[in-house]
Parts: sequence; structure tokens; C-alpha cells
Amino acid sequence: MVKYPSGSTAAFRKPVKRPKVRRSFSHRKGVSFSDRGMTLEQQINESNKYYLDEGIAVVHKKPTPIQIVKVDYPKRSKAVIKEAYFRQASTTDYNGVYQGYYLDFESKETHNKTNFPLKNFHEHQIFHLNACLKQQGICFTIIGFTSLGRYFVTPASFVIAAWQDKNKSSMKLEELEENSIEISSGFRPTLPYIDAVDQLIKGRK
Amino acid sequence: MVKYPSGSTAAFRKPVKRPKVRRSFSHRKGVSFSDRGMTLEQQINESNKYYLDEGIAVVHKKPTPIQIVKVDYPKRSKAVIKEAYFRQASTTDYNGVYQGYYLDFESKETHNKTNFPLKNFHEHQIFHLNACLKQQGICFTIIGFTSLGRYFVTPASFVIAAWQDKNKSSMKLEELEENSIEISSGFRPTLPYIDAVDQLIKGRK
Repeated sequence: MVKYPSGSTAAFRKPVKRPKVRRSFSHRKGVSFSDRGMTLEQQINESNKYYLDEGIAVVHKKPTPIQIVKVDYPKRSKAVIKEAYFRQASTTDYNGVYQGYYLDFESKETHNKTNFPLKNFHEHQIFHLNACLKQQGICFTIIGFTSLGRYFVTPASFVIAAWQDKNKSSMKLEELEENSIEISSGFRPTLPYIDAVDQLIKGRK
Repeated sequence: MVKYPSGSTAAFRKPVKRPKVRRSFSHRKGVSFSDRGMTLEQQINESNKYYLDEGIAVVHKKPTPIQIVKVDYPKRSKAVIKEAYFRQASTTDYNGVYQGYYLDFESKETHNKTNFPLKNFHEHQIFHLNACLKQQGICFTIIGFTSLGRYFVTPASFVIAAWQDKNKSSMKLEELEENSIEISSGFRPTLPYIDAVDQLIKGRK
């Protein structure tokens, strides 16, 4: 028995039925529909699957932390969790590795059109991004303006400074335009955030 | 309001009551009791807390992935998960960042005294370690022989090769001695695996 199909990820892939979509097209008002109605999280997860399948990067979303209290083990059936509670996370949602670099990021969506409210970031996320920055990780946020179909990859250092500023309750769209790398929703990957990571790495050198 | 206590993690720390223990001492048969009866997972989690508090590394255990089916939202009380199922993980249990390096590892315990059965590693763990290795991560396993009180940090490349070998069902203790960095259970941190990581990094350069 060969236990491991070295050099090929084919055995690990599930076949994916992809709807036939045009790569990208724009509404006359400038709204892109290439995200096919997916949430930002779905777009990132699909992009991560693409990056993994293609051997480009290994990034996973962390599961939601749960405190399990009661589990039933029915006969001839799988275990059922009957009582559990949501726990506070202590990190961001995503991390992984890309060409030797540690990646760590949080993603957020807003329906706003002119600014992103800073209260959407929680203290544990800011603390974690800061701790990872000190360990020389590539840390950032992906902020999606759903009404505009625009996505920004923003260095964590900028977001942390904005969050710490007691006179600031939001980041204006113009600020994000100035301090981020904008990425466009597309086909494969759905959200090519690694292109922005390349720029963050270049900027750091 | 100052939203973020920059430069200090004090506000994020919970006070920990530490039992008064000697740093390390050995039973006459050579069994160390410095792990204070903790499981390997508890030792690693406590070490990760130490590394985080001291600004040495940021490593977290990933939560168990759960498929949530039914949630109750009682009035004036927190949400209760009433039906959920365990899902298959797609990664190892631990990852994080240390001085710019991406760390990824799985930990396993055995009561055996002479070998470690390879069936304890699951395909998704081997696949994930291999994918992270290709992205130049620092990937390894921590194997604890509980009956012996001995702990080995073994490079993932060795473990993957052993797992792939169809004629092999276990790794012998002598093999692990030869191909690992042995670490001793101690006081702070409980399991100083970052010392072994330093050696893995040196060996790679």
C-alpha cells in the first residue's frame, strides 16, 4: 500500500463544479459582479483552496472556538454535540505560510460607502496582529466595501495605529485608498490577495 | 479612552496561580515528574502562553472544527449550541510565527516505551506538513513518550518519509533519538520546544 501520493495533490482534491462565468464584468455604475454574490469569507476561502491546489500558499481559516459541554455517542452513528458554547477567539481568522513568510490577517465587510468603522475590529484581533508584527509576520486586513465591490489589503501597522487613535472612530475610504493595495474580485483566484502580499513583502525589504 | 495598551501585554494577561514546584527532578528510575501530570497538549499550551507573554513567539492551538446545526438564543443568556458534529480537520493542531519563521507542528503522545506507531498520524496532517514544508515553513512533530517522560522534536521531513514507507508501521525509539532534538519537560516554559526550533533553523541555513 502506498500511503502517500507524493508530489501530487490530486487525491486530496474534491471535484469542484464551477459555474460558467465571465472572468469579470462591470455594471455601468462601476459595481463589479465578478464575486458572484459570495461573501468576502467565501471569496477568501475559495482563493485559499486555489492557492493550496496550485502549490502557491498554504492559508486556512481557523475554526470558531467552541466550549463543548455535552456529547452523545449514539450506537452505529457519529457523535452528536448536544450542548456547547461559543468562546472568545484569541487570534485573527486566517494564517498560513507563503514562500517562507508567515501570513496573518483578518477580513471584514461593510455596506458603508465612505468609511470603515473601527469598532469592527476587536481588541484580541488588534493585539494578535501586533504580536505577530513583532515576530516579523506579514500582517494585514482585507476590507471589503460590498456596495462598491472594492477590496483593500491594508498593512496591519496602519490599522493598529488607526484603532489606537482615540480621536478616530473609522477609516475613511480615501485613507484606505492611500494606505492599501486595492485588489479586484476575479475568477481564479476569486480574490487574488497574494498579489498584494507580494507588494507588502517588497515594501518591507 | 486609550483603546490599546501599546507595548504592554499586562492588560491581556490573566493572573495565573502557579504551584510552587521545583524546576525539575527525577525519579530514581529516570522518570521526570517536572511535567506535573499534565498531558502533552497542556504542556504545549502552557508553553505557548509563556512564549506569548514573554514576546518570544506567537503560537496557538487551532480549535477543533465543528459543524453547527442548531443554536438556541435564550433571552438574557448566551447562545447555546444544541446540535453540532465534529468535522475532519485539514491541518495540524499548532501553527504560528517566531522571528519571521512560520512554525507548524503536530503533537502526539504514546504509552509505548520502544516505538511510536505511525498510524497515529493522519493523512491530512502528513499532507499539510508536506505542503507547508514546500512553502519553507519550519515543520515538525513533538512526540511524547509518557511512560519514559521523554519528548522529541522531529523534523517533518523525517516523519513524512517514515509515514510514506509502506514497509514501516512505527518509528523506533532509537530512530527518533537519532533524528530528533530531545527536549526536557521543565518549569518555564513547561516544554521548551523553541530551543529545538532554533536548532532546526540553524540546520536549515
